[in-house]
Amino acid sequence: MFEQLGLIGCGLMGGSFALALKQAGLVKRVVGYSKSPSTTERACQMGVIDVAAPSALLAVSGADIVLMAVPVAASEATFKAIKHMVTPCMLIMDVGSTKGDVVEAAARGLREQVGSFVPAHPIAGKELAGVDNADAELYVGKQVILTPTEVTLSAHTQRATEVWSALGCKVVQMSPESHDAAFAAVSHLPHMLAFTLMNSVIGQSKGASYMGLAGPGFRDFTRIAASDPKVWRDILQANRAELLTQCQHFRDQLALFEAAMLAGDQQTLEALITQASTARAAWRMNQLP
Amino acid sequence: MFEQLGLIGCGLMGGSFALALKQAGLVKRVVGYSKSPSTTERACQMGVIDVAAPSALLAVSGADIVLMAVPVAASEATFKAIKHMVTPCMLIMDVGSTKGDVVEAAARGLREQVGSFVPAHPIAGKELAGVDNADAELYVGKQVILTPTEVTLSAHTQRATEVWSALGCKVVQMSPESHDAAFAAVSHLPHMLAFTLMNSVIGQSKGASYMGLAGPGFRDFTRIAASDPKVWRDILQANRAELLTQCQHFRDQLALFEAAMLAGDQQTLEALITQASTARAAWRMNQLP
Repeated sequence: MFEQLGLIGCGLMGGSFALALKQAGLVKRVVGYSKSPSTTERACQMGVIDVAAPSALLAVSGADIVLMAVPVAASEATFKAIKHMVTPCMLIMDVGSTKGDVVEAAARGLREQVGSFVPAHPIAGKELAGVDNADAELYVGKQVILTPTEVTLSAHTQRATEVWSALGCKVVQMSPESHDAAFAAVSHLPHMLAFTLMNSVIGQSKGASYMGLAGPGFRDFTRIAASDPKVWRDILQANRAELLTQCQHFRDQLALFEAAMLAGDQQTLEALITQASTARAAWRMNQLP
Repeated sequence: MFEQLGLIGCGLMGGSFALALKQAGLVKRVVGYSKSPSTTERACQMGVIDVAAPSALLAVSGADIVLMAVPVAASEATFKAIKHMVTPCMLIMDVGSTKGDVVEAAARGLREQVGSFVPAHPIAGKELAGVDNADAELYVGKQVILTPTEVTLSAHTQRATEVWSALGCKVVQMSPESHDAAFAAVSHLPHMLAFTLMNSVIGQSKGASYMGLAGPGFRDFTRIAASDPKVWRDILQANRAELLTQCQHFRDQLALFEAAMLAGDQQTLEALITQASTARAAWRMNQLP
């Protein structure tokens, strides 16, 4: 049970965490700060936060748990802004989709208080961002990746595990590097490919009429292309080394398809599709191997 | 109102057409043929067909409407098998995902009877194929593309339009070439990219553990990768010229992302994502521009 959650960023991810914590009876009070005053106001109206703080620093003041739910590129500035109120007993977490850059930002921003920070990535989201879509059930049944480093206080890692577990999440621990390599492959690259497909189609003179014919396969494949541009610019940029590696793997595999089609090699073509189809049919979300 | 539907191929697409036609009261009797006797038997049990025919030729005998719902690669052999029973008043349609190759197969297979054939592509499907998943509602609200050529009897094109409209479909007419170019862009390429992503991930030593972390974005992006290998081998191969062109467009667009990331050019990166995101957010299925 926590006394006070300091929430920095009251959007979908942060707002949902506050609601979930309240619903589970795990926090007495939520003090929230958002860059946009209208967001903070709305969060108050909705009961997502109890008190609006005028700054990130004051949102943290007196908190025993802090969630930083801001764009990853804003991490370092946020850590610096709150540093003077951070205490060793305060558990600080983020929700960013990349971890290596956030870990570095925490080291630079929190300095000797960095042990309080447990990097976290809940694998949850919605197409519709913003506090209006905050949902106490958003995290239920989802995976949360924690990427503590050698400077993280292990008591905090333990508490972070307990909090997310209490919200119904499956908690997985790994290094920031392993996290970023994995998510480059299964999240960041698919987003980049979905963006690329959209740009490829609309860049053609008949692109608009082509899209008018598209069906459910196109709908699902491109759903993630509607994601927030600033959020995804930051993610792609932050994880660019791993992402470029994954992109090269992808190009190599794509070349196998192209070569098989050019050669009219139906056997290879079928083998390539069978491999993909079998793997996808066997895959289940949230099941670690 | 038709007297008798000759159904060749009693799987998901063919079975659903028979059920829809019956439900709409548009046909008195369905005579069905499938390569696999167990499929025909199951189709009889389910009431999808009324009579099982021992051959494609005998399924066509006496029919005034014929639906050929077989893999596209089997088109020419099927046209040849039924040719001797085809009459000028018989309306013949297919449901293939490619049209140029089917039009050529019809010309070679049906010869002087080719005027009876109206090439059709209903934009509908399910992940689960087979007669067990046949559904009278499968085509409701979906688009159907008809690609008649200069040899198609216009009365048949008219009747084909009426039948699909009566089943609740939106009928669109275009040339086989335009069809194949459009579907290379919005269906065949996305399938190939989804297959490629699966192969790219599972081809890495840590691929299985990466996939264990994948979330809803990966799930939707790769859904079509579970498609039937033989069906998609045929589609990719049949439409390979258009598909290779689309693949090159895609590679060019992907290179823009890679270059922006390598250069750390956040402005270009954001502009690329914004373009994709805006286009996807504005897109609505089944709305022609």
